Amino acid sequence: MAAPLGLTPADLQHILDRIGAEMASAPDRGRVADYIPELARISDQHFAMAICTADGQCLTTGAADQPFSIQSISKVFTLALALGRFGDQLFARVGREPSGLAFNSVVQLESEQGIPRNPFINAGALVVTDAILQGHQPREVLGEILRFVREAAGEDDIHINKSVAASEAAHGHRNLALAHFMAAQGNLKNPPELTCGTYFHQCAIEMTTRQLALAGRFLMGAPGAARLVSPARLRRINALMLTCGHYDGSGEFAYRVGLPGKSGVGGGILAIAPGRASIAVWSPGLNAQGNSQLGTLAIERLARATGWSVFG
Amino acid sequence: MAAPLGLTPADLQHILDRIGAEMASAPDRGRVADYIPELARISDQHFAMAICTADGQCLTTGAADQPFSIQSISKVFTLALALGRFGDQLFARVGREPSGLAFNSVVQLESEQGIPRNPFINAGALVVTDAILQGHQPREVLGEILRFVREAAGEDDIHINKSVAASEAAHGHRNLALAHFMAAQGNLKNPPELTCGTYFHQCAIEMTTRQLALAGRFLMGAPGAARLVSPARLRRINALMLTCGHYDGSGEFAYRVGLPGKSGVGGGILAIAPGRASIAVWSPGLNAQGNSQLGTLAIERLARATGWSVFG
Amino acid sequence: MAAPLGLTPADLQHILDRIGAEMASAPDRGRVADYIPELARISDQHFAMAICTADGQCLTTGAADQPFSIQSISKVFTLALALGRFGDQLFARVGREPSGLAFNSVVQLESEQGIPRNPFINAGALVVTDAILQGHQPREVLGEILRFVREAAGEDDIHINKSVAASEAAHGHRNLALAHFMAAQGNLKNPPELTCGTYFHQCAIEMTTRQLALAGRFLMGAPGAARLVSPARLRRINALMLTCGHYDGSGEFAYRVGLPGKSGVGGGILAIAPGRASIAVWSPGLNAQGNSQLGTLAIERLARATGWSVFG
Amino acid sequence: MAAPLGLTPADLQHILDRIGAEMASAPDRGRVADYIPELARISDQHFAMAICTADGQCLTTGAADQPFSIQSISKVFTLALALGRFGDQLFARVGREPSGLAFNSVVQLESEQGIPRNPFINAGALVVTDAILQGHQPREVLGEILRFVREAAGEDDIHINKSVAASEAAHGHRNLALAHFMAAQGNLKNPPELTCGTYFHQCAIEMTTRQLALAGRFLMGAPGAARLVSPARLRRINALMLTCGHYDGSGEFAYRVGLPGKSGVGGGILAIAPGRASIAVWSPGLNAQGNSQLGTLAIERLARATGWSVFG
Repeated sequence: MAAPLGLTPADLQHILDRIGAEMASAPDRGRVADYIPELARISDQHFAMAICTADGQCLTTGAADQPFSIQSISKVFTLALALGRFGDQLFARVGREPSGLAFNSVVQLESEQGIPRNPFINAGALVVTDAILQGHQPREVLGEILRFVREAAGEDDIHINKSVAASEAAHGHRNLALAHFMAAQGNLKNPPELTCGTYFHQCAIEMTTRQLALAGRFLMGAPGAARLVSPARLRRINALMLTCGHYDGSGEFAYRVGLPGKSGVGGGILAIAPGRASIAVWSPGLNAQGNSQLGTLAIERLARATGWSVFG
Repeated sequence: MAAPLGLTPADLQHILDRIGAEMASAPDRGRVADYIPELARISDQHFAMAICTADGQCLTTGAADQPFSIQSISKVFTLALALGRFGDQLFARVGREPSGLAFNSVVQLESEQGIPRNPFINAGALVVTDAILQGHQPREVLGEILRFVREAAGEDDIHINKSVAASEAAHGHRNLALAHFMAAQGNLKNPPELTCGTYFHQCAIEMTTRQLALAGRFLMGAPGAARLVSPARLRRINALMLTCGHYDGSGEFAYRVGLPGKSGVGGGILAIAPGRASIAVWSPGLNAQGNSQLGTLAIERLARATGWSVFG
Repeated sequence: MAAPLGLTPADLQHILDRIGAEMASAPDRGRVADYIPELARISDQHFAMAICTADGQCLTTGAADQPFSIQSISKVFTLALALGRFGDQLFARVGREPSGLAFNSVVQLESEQGIPRNPFINAGALVVTDAILQGHQPREVLGEILRFVREAAGEDDIHINKSVAASEAAHGHRNLALAHFMAAQGNLKNPPELTCGTYFHQCAIEMTTRQLALAGRFLMGAPGAARLVSPARLRRINALMLTCGHYDGSGEFAYRVGLPGKSGVGGGILAIAPGRASIAVWSPGLNAQGNSQLGTLAIERLARATGWSVFG
Repeated sequence: MAAPLGLTPADLQHILDRIGAEMASAPDRGRVADYIPELARISDQHFAMAICTADGQCLTTGAADQPFSIQSISKVFTLALALGRFGDQLFARVGREPSGLAFNSVVQLESEQGIPRNPFINAGALVVTDAILQGHQPREVLGEILRFVREAAGEDDIHINKSVAASEAAHGHRNLALAHFMAAQGNLKNPPELTCGTYFHQCAIEMTTRQLALAGRFLMGAPGAARLVSPARLRRINALMLTCGHYDGSGEFAYRVGLPGKSGVGGGILAIAPGRASIAVWSPGLNAQGNSQLGTLAIERLARATGWSVFG
C-alpha cells in the first residue's frame, strides 16, 4: 500500500454496490454449514458488505443491518483480549504457524504435544478461551468478551444467541475431543466442559455486517482509530490473520486477496486493509475450506478495485 | 505501511550500522548447515546487510560484497520465471498453502497426490524447475535463470558455483526421493535426475548481499522500479513469500518481522518492504527451522527501527 | 504345534520354577505404569506365572494368588461377549488390522473416519464396550462382564476395584477424547461419559494370575474345555490377539514368543497355546511398548522350553 | 492345530477340486494389476492351487503348471537368505511390526528415521535385498536367490522374466523414491539404482503354482522336510508372514484364514500350515489391499474344510 489511492466515499460506494449486484446473481453460492440446525436454516441468498475507512466513513451494501452468527471471527476478539492480559507468554501454550490441516484436526495435537499450531484453529482458540477463563466464571468471561466487542464496535446492541450456543454444545463432540486431548497433555487448565461451554457461547455472538466492520477498526492502525491494542500488537494480530485466518485456505486468501482476514462458519469474514479500512462481508454459503464462498470473492473484487493489498 | 516515514539515507545507514554492530557481538549465531562440505566450511562469523530503497538508494553494512550460496532464495526467481511463462496454470501442479511441515517432507506429497503444498518447499520448487525445464536442456534453463537474476540485479558478475552444485548432487538423495515420488504420481515431466540436476545448479548460484538486495527490487512495486513482473504478479509472489517463505517458521517470521521474505540454507534472506525497500541479509548460522538466525533477528530489528511492516 | 511334546506336569512345574527364579534376579524389570496412583504404588518386584493345560492341570510359580488389575486384558472378555451378541456385524464399527501406532492414538481415527483399527487399541475397546452397553445400564453390563469372567475362570472371587476405576476416570481425558471423537464421527451410540465410565470399571477388574490362566482356558480349543465361544470364534479371537494384542509390540511378541496374547498396563499378560495351554503371567514393570517387560520374557522362555509355538 | 485330522490324499484332492470349481464360477474376480503392461495383459480367469503335505504328497487343481510372476512372494526367499547370512542383526535395519499402511507408503519411513516397519513392505524388502547385495554384483545375488528358490522347490526350471524386470524398472519411480529416501537416512548401502535393479529382477521370478507350493515346504517344519533354515528361524519367518504378509490386509487374512501367508501382486499367495502343508494359489485379480481376491477366498475355504488353522 505504497501511495494514497484517492478514492472518494462515492467511489467506494459505487464499488460496493457493483460488487453487491454481482454477488446477487452469482451462480455458485457455496454450501451453508449444516452441522447445527440454527445455521442450516439460514438462506444462502443473504449478502452484505460494509467498509469503515480510516477517515471515519462507514459504507455498506446489502443486508448490512441483519445480525448473523460471527462464529470463529470471535477468535480475533478473544485473542486480542488474551494478548492484552498475557502478552507473548500466551504463546507458550499455542503456536503461531499455519496448520496445513483442517480447522478441527487432532492429528497435529498428537504430534506436537498438545500445543495447537495457532490461535485460529479450534484447538488454539480453545486454549485462548481457557487462558482468559482461568480464575473466572464463564459468565464473567463472556461479559468481558461482549464488552470488548461492543467497545470496538461502538455499539451496545450485540448479543449472544443462546439457542445457537446450546446447539453448538449439543453437537460439540469434536471440540470436546480436542479439549479432553489437550487436558490429557496438560494444556487445558479448566474442565473441558467449562472451556468448551464458554467457547460455544463466544462463537454464538451475533453481529450485523456493519457492526463487524466497525468492530474491526481497532486493527486498522489508522492515526485516529480507537486504541484497544498497541500498534505493535495489532500488526501481530494482522500477521496471524493473514497467515492463519482462513484455515487451510489462508495461503489462497493471501494470494488472491492480499489482506489479513478471519472467517467464520456463519459466512462472515472480517478483513483489514492496514491504515485504510476495516471490511466486513457476510454470505452464508461456504467453500470447500469452510470459508464464505461469495464473501471471499467479494473481498477479492474490492481489493482489486481499490488497489488495497499489503503486498505492493 | 500507512504513511511515509521520512527516513533519510543517513538515518537508514545509521540503523544498518547499529544492527551490524549488534550482530557482531551476538552470542548465539545458530548452526551452519553441514549436509555438504562446501557449506559446512563457511564461518558463522559472517554478517552482511543491504537495503535498496524505492528511491534508488543502496546502503550496506558488513561484508556485503562477499558472494555466498543463495540456495533456496533462487526459488523466488524460478517462480517469477515460471509464472511469467505459465501464469496461474502453474498452480495445477503446485499449491499455494503453507505446509506446516519441514521443508523436505514427503508425508504431505503422499496424502495430497504428489501436488506439493507451495513453490517454496523443496518438492514445490522441483515442480517449478521441472516446468521451466520441459522441452529445454538444463544448460539453456540455467542460462535463462542466470539472465533473469542478472537483469534483476543489474549486474553481470553472478555465477553458479559448480563444486557446490556437484556436492548437492552427491548428497541429493532426499530431493531425488521427492522427485521420484512425484514422477510416480505423474507430477514430474522430466527424468528426476535431470530436474534435480538443474535444481542443484540453481541453488548453487552465488551472489553478494548487495547483489541480492538489488535483485529483489522488482518485488518492491515502487513506481520507477524495473518491471520484470506485473504489479498483480509481484503482489502474489510477495504473498507466497510471506505465507511460505520460511518453511515451518513462516508464521513466526510474519509475526515478528511482518515482511514477505525468503530464506536459503546458505544463510541468506531476501525480504521486501512493498513500496519502500528490498532488503538482503547474510549470516550463515541457522535456527531450528533452517532459517538464518542472525539474519532473521537483523531484519526484525530493521523493521522495528524503520516501522516497515505490511500489517499496519 | 505339530506333534505332542510329552511334557509331564513335573516337567512343566520345573520349567515354571526355573523361569520364576530367573525373573527374580532379572536386572531390568521395566517401568511400572504411573498415570494413576493406584498403579504407580505397585512394586516392580512382583512376579507370578500360571499354566492351565488342556488336560486340566493348573500349575503356578510366584505370587499367583495375589490379585492385580487386569486392565486391557479385559478387552478379550468384552470382545468375546460382543462377538457372542453381534457376531461379525461388530466389525462394521471396528476393524481387525494391527494399528502400527500407540495404543491410544487419535491420528488413525481421523484418517479412518472414526473406525478404530482393531478391538484391542483403546478406541476399539471403547466401541466394543459401547456396543454391549447400548440399551442397558452400565451396572447391568458390568455385571454381565463379571459373570462371563467368573464363569470362564470357574471362580466367583473376582471383583472390580472401585478406587482404581475412580482414578482412571479422574485421569481419563485421553479416553474421553477418543470417545468424543468417535461420537463426532457417529461411531459411539451412548454418551461418551457413560461408555468411558463403563470402560474404566471393566479395566479395574482384579484377578489373580491363577484366575487369569483359568479364565483363558476357553480360548485353548481343547476337546474338554468349557465352550463359552464356538471353535471358529475362538480361533478368530486368538488371531486378533496374535496380530493386535500387544499394541505396537505385537509383531515383536509374535516373532519372539509365537503365541496369541493380550497384555494389560497392570503388568499382566494372557497367552494361549492352542490345544495345549492357557498361560498367565504378572510382573508390573512395562517395556517401551507398554507391555510387561518380564512377563514377555517369561512367556518367551516358556515357549522355548516347551516348544509351544503356533508357527511350527 | 491340536490333533491329527486324518485327511487322506483323496479327501484333499476332492476338497481342492471343489474349490477349483467354485472359483471358476466366482463372479467377483478382483482387478488385475495394471501398473506394468506385462502384468496388465494377464487374464483374470486363471486359477490354480497346489498343496504339498508333510508326508510328501503334492496335489493340485487348475493350471498349476503355468508360470506366473511371483513378485512380492520373492521377499520370503530373500528374507530367509538374509537371515541365514546376518541373523537377527538384520533387524537393526528393518523392523518386525505390521505397518498399518499401504505396501509402498513413505510416510512411515519419515516418522521412523528410514527404518522400514517390516521386511515385507517394499521399503523393508529393499533393505533386505540391499543387505545381501552389499559387496556383491547384482548378477551374483540374483544367481544366489534363484539357487535358493530352485533348491527349495527341488526343480531347476525357474527363471527371471527379463521383460517384466525391465518394465518394473521403467515404472519404478516409487521404489526408487523409497530407496533414495532410505539412502538419505543412511539405511541403504548400495546406490539406489543398483538395489532397485536387483529388487526388480527378484520380483520378476516366474514359478508355477506347483513349484511355489514345493518351494514353501521348508517353512512347514515337518520332520522329514528339507532344512534350509533352522526350526527356530522358520517359526519366525512364519510369524512375520502372519503379521505382515498381506500388507494392510494381514489382520484380515489372519482372522479369516488363520495361516501364515505371503501374497504377490501377480496374484500368487504362499501359505503355510505348520507341520501339515505348504499351500500355493494363483489368481491374478486383486482385492482392495492388493492381495489375490480368489486366492484369499480359496485358502480360506481350504482352511475351513481341512480345519487347518494355527489358532486352535
